[in-house]
Amino acid sequence: MAGNSYGTLYRITTFGESHGEALGGIIDGCPSGIQLDFDAIQLEMTRRKPGQSAIVTQRKEPDEVQFLSGIFEGKTTGTPIGFIIPNTNQKSDDYSHIKDNYRPSHADYVYEKKYGVRDYRGGGRSSARETASRVVAGAIAKQMLPEIKINAYVSSVGPIFLEKPYQELDFSKIESNPVRCPDENSAAEMEEYIRQIRKDGDTVGGTVTCVIQNVPIGLGEPVFDKLHAELGKAMLSINAVKGFEFGSGFEGVKMKGSEHNDLYNPDGTTRTNRSGGIQGGISNGMDIYFRVAFKPVATLMQKQESLDNQGNITEMTGKGRHDPCVVPRAVPIVEAMAAIVLADFYLLNKTYL
Amino acid sequence: MAGNSYGTLYRITTFGESHGEALGGIIDGCPSGIQLDFDAIQLEMTRRKPGQSAIVTQRKEPDEVQFLSGIFEGKTTGTPIGFIIPNTNQKSDDYSHIKDNYRPSHADYVYEKKYGVRDYRGGGRSSARETASRVVAGAIAKQMLPEIKINAYVSSVGPIFLEKPYQELDFSKIESNPVRCPDENSAAEMEEYIRQIRKDGDTVGGTVTCVIQNVPIGLGEPVFDKLHAELGKAMLSINAVKGFEFGSGFEGVKMKGSEHNDLYNPDGTTRTNRSGGIQGGISNGMDIYFRVAFKPVATLMQKQESLDNQGNITEMTGKGRHDPCVVPRAVPIVEAMAAIVLADFYLLNKTYL
Amino acid sequence: MAGNSYGTLYRITTFGESHGEALGGIIDGCPSGIQLDFDAIQLEMTRRKPGQSAIVTQRKEPDEVQFLSGIFEGKTTGTPIGFIIPNTNQKSDDYSHIKDNYRPSHADYVYEKKYGVRDYRGGGRSSARETASRVVAGAIAKQMLPEIKINAYVSSVGPIFLEKPYQELDFSKIESNPVRCPDENSAAEMEEYIRQIRKDGDTVGGTVTCVIQNVPIGLGEPVFDKLHAELGKAMLSINAVKGFEFGSGFEGVKMKGSEHNDLYNPDGTTRTNRSGGIQGGISNGMDIYFRVAFKPVATLMQKQESLDNQGNITEMTGKGRHDPCVVPRAVPIVEAMAAIVLADFYLLNKTYL
Amino acid sequence: MAGNSYGTLYRITTFGESHGEALGGIIDGCPSGIQLDFDAIQLEMTRRKPGQSAIVTQRKEPDEVQFLSGIFEGKTTGTPIGFIIPNTNQKSDDYSHIKDNYRPSHADYVYEKKYGVRDYRGGGRSSARETASRVVAGAIAKQMLPEIKINAYVSSVGPIFLEKPYQELDFSKIESNPVRCPDENSAAEMEEYIRQIRKDGDTVGGTVTCVIQNVPIGLGEPVFDKLHAELGKAMLSINAVKGFEFGSGFEGVKMKGSEHNDLYNPDGTTRTNRSGGIQGGISNGMDIYFRVAFKPVATLMQKQESLDNQGNITEMTGKGRHDPCVVPRAVPIVEAMAAIVLADFYLLNKTYL
Repeated sequence: MAGNSYGTLYRITTFGESHGEALGGIIDGCPSGIQLDFDAIQLEMTRRKPGQSAIVTQRKEPDEVQFLSGIFEGKTTGTPIGFIIPNTNQKSDDYSHIKDNYRPSHADYVYEKKYGVRDYRGGGRSSARETASRVVAGAIAKQMLPEIKINAYVSSVGPIFLEKPYQELDFSKIESNPVRCPDENSAAEMEEYIRQIRKDGDTVGGTVTCVIQNVPIGLGEPVFDKLHAELGKAMLSINAVKGFEFGSGFEGVKMKGSEHNDLYNPDGTTRTNRSGGIQGGISNGMDIYFRVAFKPVATLMQKQESLDNQGNITEMTGKGRHDPCVVPRAVPIVEAMAAIVLADFYLLNKTYL
Repeated sequence: MAGNSYGTLYRITTFGESHGEALGGIIDGCPSGIQLDFDAIQLEMTRRKPGQSAIVTQRKEPDEVQFLSGIFEGKTTGTPIGFIIPNTNQKSDDYSHIKDNYRPSHADYVYEKKYGVRDYRGGGRSSARETASRVVAGAIAKQMLPEIKINAYVSSVGPIFLEKPYQELDFSKIESNPVRCPDENSAAEMEEYIRQIRKDGDTVGGTVTCVIQNVPIGLGEPVFDKLHAELGKAMLSINAVKGFEFGSGFEGVKMKGSEHNDLYNPDGTTRTNRSGGIQGGISNGMDIYFRVAFKPVATLMQKQESLDNQGNITEMTGKGRHDPCVVPRAVPIVEAMAAIVLADFYLLNKTYL
Repeated sequence: MAGNSYGTLYRITTFGESHGEALGGIIDGCPSGIQLDFDAIQLEMTRRKPGQSAIVTQRKEPDEVQFLSGIFEGKTTGTPIGFIIPNTNQKSDDYSHIKDNYRPSHADYVYEKKYGVRDYRGGGRSSARETASRVVAGAIAKQMLPEIKINAYVSSVGPIFLEKPYQELDFSKIESNPVRCPDENSAAEMEEYIRQIRKDGDTVGGTVTCVIQNVPIGLGEPVFDKLHAELGKAMLSINAVKGFEFGSGFEGVKMKGSEHNDLYNPDGTTRTNRSGGIQGGISNGMDIYFRVAFKPVATLMQKQESLDNQGNITEMTGKGRHDPCVVPRAVPIVEAMAAIVLADFYLLNKTYL
Repeated sequence: MAGNSYGTLYRITTFGESHGEALGGIIDGCPSGIQLDFDAIQLEMTRRKPGQSAIVTQRKEPDEVQFLSGIFEGKTTGTPIGFIIPNTNQKSDDYSHIKDNYRPSHADYVYEKKYGVRDYRGGGRSSARETASRVVAGAIAKQMLPEIKINAYVSSVGPIFLEKPYQELDFSKIESNPVRCPDENSAAEMEEYIRQIRKDGDTVGGTVTCVIQNVPIGLGEPVFDKLHAELGKAMLSINAVKGFEFGSGFEGVKMKGSEHNDLYNPDGTTRTNRSGGIQGGISNGMDIYFRVAFKPVATLMQKQESLDNQGNITEMTGKGRHDPCVVPRAVPIVEAMAAIVLADFYLLNKTYL
């Protein structure tokens, strides 16, 4: 099954290439009667969009969502919500140089091998621009689940790690700096590091941590569709992601059971939360938290080798306007995918008599 | 949708509780005309089953698969393959003590909250015994894809890590020791460590690394069903898994793009493989490799607190026969899920005209 | 996607060939906490099974269901319900004569062309014996929806039609005769006709009418998964079915809108019910009724031509024990599929906030 | 699962209300490399659109498709094809009179009960205008399967039936008259009948017959997703459809097996084709033919009773521009859904090794 849909009951299907007429999608299964806050939706779009600060790409894209259906007098009607996001600021000539070239660590080569043809402009379908549609679906999912709080933030940029546990952070500070790191000192270091990397025409990776609070007990569908398995798939489906861990994650493997187990309080909460709010694939009411690894952006503003479709090794320098570090703009995308996953499981959980 | 199925075209649906009559499943979509090697299937079952060595649980389960349909004169017929694995060695009385108790870091509590009732014997549906059915489906998937080589092995136990890259390992040694670590020295250390942990009535976590070779270019369905996203979901759906990373993974986040990019050879292969054989969610023909994190087993053979269904904190000691470390037995399960994912994408990829 | 599953939230997947070890299936998505009446389930199995009377096949099959999972202390647990129905009375030698022969109007030929191999014994997977598994899933669906009343009955056999509308029939009489026609006179005629047909070694078709009462308003998922569209698919998936109509059906095409429209009562019910309880694909609370057409059984107890796999036209006479008319035994199957469809939509409808 | 998607591998998801900004959809799974004939697509749109002749509604809708993605330099790329059809000719004030009224035999009442809110303008989502999106997907499916010939035509209008079997008809004449009946005499009668009905402000039903030729052997996925079961569902999902039959259909129930069976020719074709080209749910290479029943349009241009949302019986006369008989415009919709079903099974069938 072509993989452009996500979710079972709350389902988003997206379409669109980086430099086509428009991106867009259909949200099917959104319950009726939700009074939508369109400013809140646009705000999420703005958080994701390029050109927000000196440390991200300077492309200017208004990224305005146009809703075409499924909403009547401001309320969802229970019918599919179709929307488009016109592409208004494409410079296709920026990409003529890659028409016959496969950029290293890009999807150019595999798309051409799999599909035989490819829209090479701006990476076409493989461009992270597609995630704009996910942000729309996520913003509506958030409004469907007002009680659930989802906060993502940048927890590392290159070698600079925010070591504080999320409990010691003030999420209201996430948007206070362009890096989207709630700790001012770390944020400043990260920002400086990105500026330097950028000067060098290089790029760098990083991690995003996401914390989900006030989740009801019972979300998740074992044995295959465990809550963390779907969260993992959703995060790994985001461009440039290389890893996912929740709760104690990769650190937990070194521990003994006697250190790792979360002992109960009489009310069913746990004194520690190495489980990351999920046991046996089902939410247990504690905070859900996970970490997502992003590789460095593949397009460099410096010379590097590439392969042309005649099998020649050529030299190229990235053109166009690209991010030196993707994680600040990835924050709203991580939140959006988390919201979509939760909305889907929330509806699934209602099917128990 | 209740989550007991995995895959779209090659689909496994499993059923069964740890202490019910039988486990089993249905494999739907297996192509017709595959001459099955039943010994090879049983061998995979034996690799997973308990009681293989001193460092795993001493439960004795024959774990014999009985095929009920979809096979005629030794060949698959293209109709659903139904199978059962009778439960022959259950000691339900072992579990009477947890009837009214929620074991820490187990699924007891969330199952009861989600479903209202639970089969408490041996963890019921949340028991890793369910993975026996996955191994059957994986073993047949392997036979469906004879050219593809899937090798998983234990890459860490507690604090002991096998640092060598997979390229320096001899996969033929994986089965030469009970830990399933292909490096003799690391294997010996790990085995000794597990024996010690076991004496203490404690448990420990670890990691499994999986390498998939000879994968054709083109497997994976962007944008949501990327090959690594499905591999991640499949691995995260295995009991006790806390994290997944592929290629450069979490280490890659510290790198610069100029260090991380995989430069091409004229034939389209890459000189390095930080991408882990997947670009843009599609296999590129290079080796696929990933790492899976397993937490320590929650059931301890020492006293620890638990919660009873009256809200009292009680004390209990694990009974029954449990693994001090799950990773050696997890190796065939990781391989099985990888084979199922590949079989599904292999069939999906045939649908391109 | 191999087509051996039906339903989204209440999903049945079946396996098994007519002469294999066993048939069976998995019901996934059945809500937890349903106290099952196993006698009621077995009763449905007995209604479907052969050898009940002189006018159906004399094969003796106990058709006893063995539940393997998903039920604990008599209650559903919300985990998948696995079950098997052993094949105890197969006479495979009955079928050796068709090993190399394609029986006219049977699936022998297309199965061999599609799959390359086939289990020829008793038609293998294409045998109506598969419907035994559907009856299990339907019986449990009925128990999940106690308020909804589903009654199917034989409304025609060959040229003999029961002309009375269902409102004039006493459903309690359906089981009072082997034809399962609630009108004694028609039943007697039909029974006599079938006896005659049988003497001639011939077979005959017929229709089954199904009436579903006390359905809540709102079941059905436009635009594609309309309630009647799914009921139609479910019925058409039963062996030997050639047509489906609901409400005014094929008769309605001759009418004018002014005759056909169902005018409302002040309480939202309608004075007439040509809509058949469904408007725009959604149940409107009125009785749902539909009619299903069954062709005559293809296997005759008289000489007829067939084709062998060498391309020779041969002559054969049906062996084995077959029904001269399938509709009496089809009644519980029609009810079962209707119950499965309703259970699925009932759960889907709960997902609206 | 909200039901706005159809198909597994060739999947169409539609959105849009009759009087919203635009209708549209996403086609996911269309193979890459298909050179599209956009005029042919627009031609199908024109066949469906209103205002084509004196016997259909006089609404003027250009129904121009705008493709937004999935196509590059005129060829499909294998990525999702997003498209919109702007609504340009809506007169919403036409519908203010039904804001608080439930029209008899319309979906107004059930939509409001199911969703709590409804876009009442022109029937909103329940309007047949939604089928415009299906026609786009069907037109592309036809281009994907050039060898397969799909011809639908009007086989009855009210009491006037075209009795000739399809073998005696010249499909090239289907478009030669506004009724889309290939037999001139019947066409003239039908047209005259519709004119009369229209004068009376009344409406009438009819049937559409569809013939599919040059279908390869092997399409269809038993046991639930039989080719005819999916065709049936697809047809029943079209607005106003009340019944579906294929091959011998409802007539076949009266026959004896000795009359009904299709005897083979040495080459595997059959001498008769009562099976309608499908045996056991799988295409057998013979012509597939089926018949679809459409009820009379519910909106009358004469006074009739309706119900208001206060529970009062009121009187109303249809406004807006409506078809007196839907079948002429249903012809391209029936073909489109048939093409979508075939495209899906065609791709599924490629997954057998």
